[in-house]
Amino acid sequence: MTSVDGRDERYVVGVDFGTLSGRALVVRVSDGAEVGTAVHEYRHGVIESALPDGGPALPPDWALQDPEDYRDVLRHAVPAALAAARVDPSRVVGIGTDFTACTVLPTLADGTPLCEIPDLRHRPHAWVKLWKHHAAQPHADRINALAYERRESWIGRYGGKISAEWQFAKGLQILEEDPETYRRAERFVEAADWIVWQLCGTETRNVCTAGYKGLRQDGRYPSTDYLSALNPGFADFLTKLDGPLLPLGDRAGSLSARAAAWTGLPEGIAVAVGNVDAHVTAASAQALRPGRLVAIMGTSTCHILNGTHPVEVPGMCGVVDGGISPGAWGYEAGQSGVGDIFGWFVRHAAPAGVDSHERLTELAAAQPVGAHGLVALDWWNGNRSLLVNHDLSGLIVGLTLATRPQDIYRALLESTAFGTRMIIEAFVAAGVPVTDLVVAGGLTSNRLLMRIYADVTNRPLSIIGSAQGPALGAAIHAAVAAGAYPTIHEASAAMGRVDEGVYQPNPENVRAYDALYAEYRALHDHFGRGANDVMLRLRAIRNAVDATAVPADTVLEVAG
Amino acid sequence: MTSVDGRDERYVVGVDFGTLSGRALVVRVSDGAEVGTAVHEYRHGVIESALPDGGPALPPDWALQDPEDYRDVLRHAVPAALAAARVDPSRVVGIGTDFTACTVLPTLADGTPLCEIPDLRHRPHAWVKLWKHHAAQPHADRINALAYERRESWIGRYGGKISAEWQFAKGLQILEEDPETYRRAERFVEAADWIVWQLCGTETRNVCTAGYKGLRQDGRYPSTDYLSALNPGFADFLTKLDGPLLPLGDRAGSLSARAAAWTGLPEGIAVAVGNVDAHVTAASAQALRPGRLVAIMGTSTCHILNGTHPVEVPGMCGVVDGGISPGAWGYEAGQSGVGDIFGWFVRHAAPAGVDSHERLTELAAAQPVGAHGLVALDWWNGNRSLLVNHDLSGLIVGLTLATRPQDIYRALLESTAFGTRMIIEAFVAAGVPVTDLVVAGGLTSNRLLMRIYADVTNRPLSIIGSAQGPALGAAIHAAVAAGAYPTIHEASAAMGRVDEGVYQPNPENVRAYDALYAEYRALHDHFGRGANDVMLRLRAIRNAVDATAVPADTVLEVAG
Repeated sequence: MTSVDGRDERYVVGVDFGTLSGRALVVRVSDGAEVGTAVHEYRHGVIESALPDGGPALPPDWALQDPEDYRDVLRHAVPAALAAARVDPSRVVGIGTDFTACTVLPTLADGTPLCEIPDLRHRPHAWVKLWKHHAAQPHADRINALAYERRESWIGRYGGKISAEWQFAKGLQILEEDPETYRRAERFVEAADWIVWQLCGTETRNVCTAGYKGLRQDGRYPSTDYLSALNPGFADFLTKLDGPLLPLGDRAGSLSARAAAWTGLPEGIAVAVGNVDAHVTAASAQALRPGRLVAIMGTSTCHILNGTHPVEVPGMCGVVDGGISPGAWGYEAGQSGVGDIFGWFVRHAAPAGVDSHERLTELAAAQPVGAHGLVALDWWNGNRSLLVNHDLSGLIVGLTLATRPQDIYRALLESTAFGTRMIIEAFVAAGVPVTDLVVAGGLTSNRLLMRIYADVTNRPLSIIGSAQGPALGAAIHAAVAAGAYPTIHEASAAMGRVDEGVYQPNPENVRAYDALYAEYRALHDHFGRGANDVMLRLRAIRNAVDATAVPADTVLEVAG
Repeated sequence: MTSVDGRDERYVVGVDFGTLSGRALVVRVSDGAEVGTAVHEYRHGVIESALPDGGPALPPDWALQDPEDYRDVLRHAVPAALAAARVDPSRVVGIGTDFTACTVLPTLADGTPLCEIPDLRHRPHAWVKLWKHHAAQPHADRINALAYERRESWIGRYGGKISAEWQFAKGLQILEEDPETYRRAERFVEAADWIVWQLCGTETRNVCTAGYKGLRQDGRYPSTDYLSALNPGFADFLTKLDGPLLPLGDRAGSLSARAAAWTGLPEGIAVAVGNVDAHVTAASAQALRPGRLVAIMGTSTCHILNGTHPVEVPGMCGVVDGGISPGAWGYEAGQSGVGDIFGWFVRHAAPAGVDSHERLTELAAAQPVGAHGLVALDWWNGNRSLLVNHDLSGLIVGLTLATRPQDIYRALLESTAFGTRMIIEAFVAAGVPVTDLVVAGGLTSNRLLMRIYADVTNRPLSIIGSAQGPALGAAIHAAVAAGAYPTIHEASAAMGRVDEGVYQPNPENVRAYDALYAEYRALHDHFGRGANDVMLRLRAIRNAVDATAVPADTVLEVAG
């Protein structure tokens, strides 16, 4: 982090709203240099068990947030980042944001969150539903079933299945579980757009979340007919959802006096259209070129890829016109468990003495490909792409008395690479080229993992040159919104950073992994596509077990 | 252990020859009271890497022993047990033995082991081949293939497949790898019979190992025609193998002066016919009644079961007329990994704080059946019955981020119980009833495991009343050989010990396990019967990996 503040330099601020905290990053417009950053933890974090301040308990699978925590990021992280940068605020020409998605909230017509209305504050459905709120699965199931029944064309744009995390499922859940809150919601808005509304006082919608999370395709949302068939009360949903739609990189408005006071930034500077954390990373990783897939790898992985035309790829999350950058079709896919699985192993399955990523990686790196004799299915947290099933689970095969912890650890690393290859092959098979990968996120520091990905995918691997990919991406969008660059592409070229081709596939390892991948794929299809639904049945058995049942330890015993 | 030595009491000595040591047990004839015991460790243990005293290195999968170590058990453990018992040796009326099997050695016509002939001592094939010598698999494969080709009727008596551990595979390996040693071998004899020969100076063969390990069925061995077709040089194998055959419980001869000097026992007392550790345990566990299955559970499990008539049970180890006790058909099956798997988990897969059987059992016992959502295939050490394949491997399915060590531990316990149920169901399906189980061996102390077995098999579980089941069984046979009881059955009734029906199946758990067992069986058949040979391919890949290959850690890396 440098604090060079040249005489004529201009700056932008990117603010990345994550799951537990928000980060502000001050970036130099001319070259993308990151000159100051600060993080602010959300006071309420993820609200999972009960509403704050003695509010009611929440059912399983709920995950809420408090929108005031987002404003606090503007109040605290932005000024702190400016101070750290030692940049005169007058030199900041724009602010951009990115958010987790689909994170969504009901508001009044002026943007006031319903959870801030006193008589609604005790109602869980009045709060922000975080992306990982998974309690709307029955609603998603009906949305999917009805889409097939009515042969809705948009379902193909989402790989054949929409997620319980998205706007329509979450909105339908509010209507059916709390009609009063649904009625009072004049707007139903992505947090990505709500935070922009807070900054500039103007309501906008961005094409990214409208497309990926709001089912907007070819200029329209699902029809009122379709919504009525889901539930007659849902027919008016679009009146809450629709809003002034803007392309990514556009200026949503100007920083309001109120937001200028919160942030310490000049009133009137450009506020960029809202965006999503994974998608803005394509700009910071210089990966807007069609065929270059960005994998943002952390606890889970998000795959972002531009293509030249729309194709229906079975099992992907979605394809949206301009969903990553204007002029291209943006593809998204994902793996719901990656770093989470490695962390699980270290915490719950590694014996004393080797229970660290460092030690396990060191031992695992010493083996030739295939030496451990194992293959795993990486579904500890379900499968997002290509199978779109949260109830799938993990599998390991090949265990022997000679199996050691580093063997399993390496097999887990490899299993996630095989999962990525399944996704790449699905894109390629559908006619969407994938020429190379850029990796961003916390897992880029695991060199063994990166090598495995290069070998398993047989593609060169580049590494993002920033540790703050999303915040830098948001800042790049701010620079475009401020008019400093004519397009996101040009801003990305000047301000993004990537270390090109750091990991090249090793032909011998590529061949060795082809054999293991063939085993992975056979297991993937056997357990994931209906030949043996043992994972779903085991989940159902587990869920059905009454926690108060007589444990096995108290079975009838007759004295010997 | 009591040291009561009533005025008119008679005693017998049972000697159990295990894999690493031999144990002598002094037992009162009238009621089977165990009055003194002692263990002697084999000086050379299992010879796996090189012959002793700087001899040549051994190839992989070899496992040899030194016969002098067996004599040392007679010299040290027997006198020590007598001393511990404070029994006057003049009151001992017989000695019986049991041995691991198939443990086999080449000797001269007088019983001298070839490895004790100076010019043969450096030849690995001159030594005792321990039961777990697994280097004769190619020979076993040819024995099986030729048996099918020639439609040899005896193959069905071995579940359809003979093991690489048995006499014909080991003998053929000697012939083909060291013809000179084969030529010099005047006798090829089970250690179970060789030790009896050492005790009484008379060569005998017992029907148990002749049947289970020597392929003797319906009064004859495989034909000379068949042996010639395997290898013309093998045509004379029966001249080395055949010998005076005696039923179990018979008197093989009288204790020789030499053996009396070794043991401190009176010259001339009865020496019982040789026997096998698992099989003698049926007598000590009072489990000779047809339908009562004895499971000897330790690192692996052996199943011993009397039936009233011969049936070909696919996948069993074998059925032999009088193989457990005269007048019944003795069935044998086995699981090649049981306690070994639990030990593997504790050592290599349990994190600090829960890395003990006690702690894991305590945590696992607290859960209702099915709560962990897991099923495992218990093939960490291959599968002996029903699949007879050493190259199969372990599998776990159902893993999630919520899976805890005790969940996996419990799933492993359950998987071995499911493996036992597969074997029981194979017997029952073939028409061999299994009414109840008696468990012997080290794992009887795990109460959770015993309860799981009762619930999974839906059968009452009795527990052997002795911690020295094999040695007590050998002593029971000594009592019969000495004429103290007319039959093994009567001796077993008087001297054996069992705690009847200690664990009764809990109907609720039985139902719950039925569902999990259905999943186990489907996975068992899918991965074990050819639908997906991924385990065999992973093993082949692992074995083919050249240990000198470039490890993945050194793949081409381009500076970023």
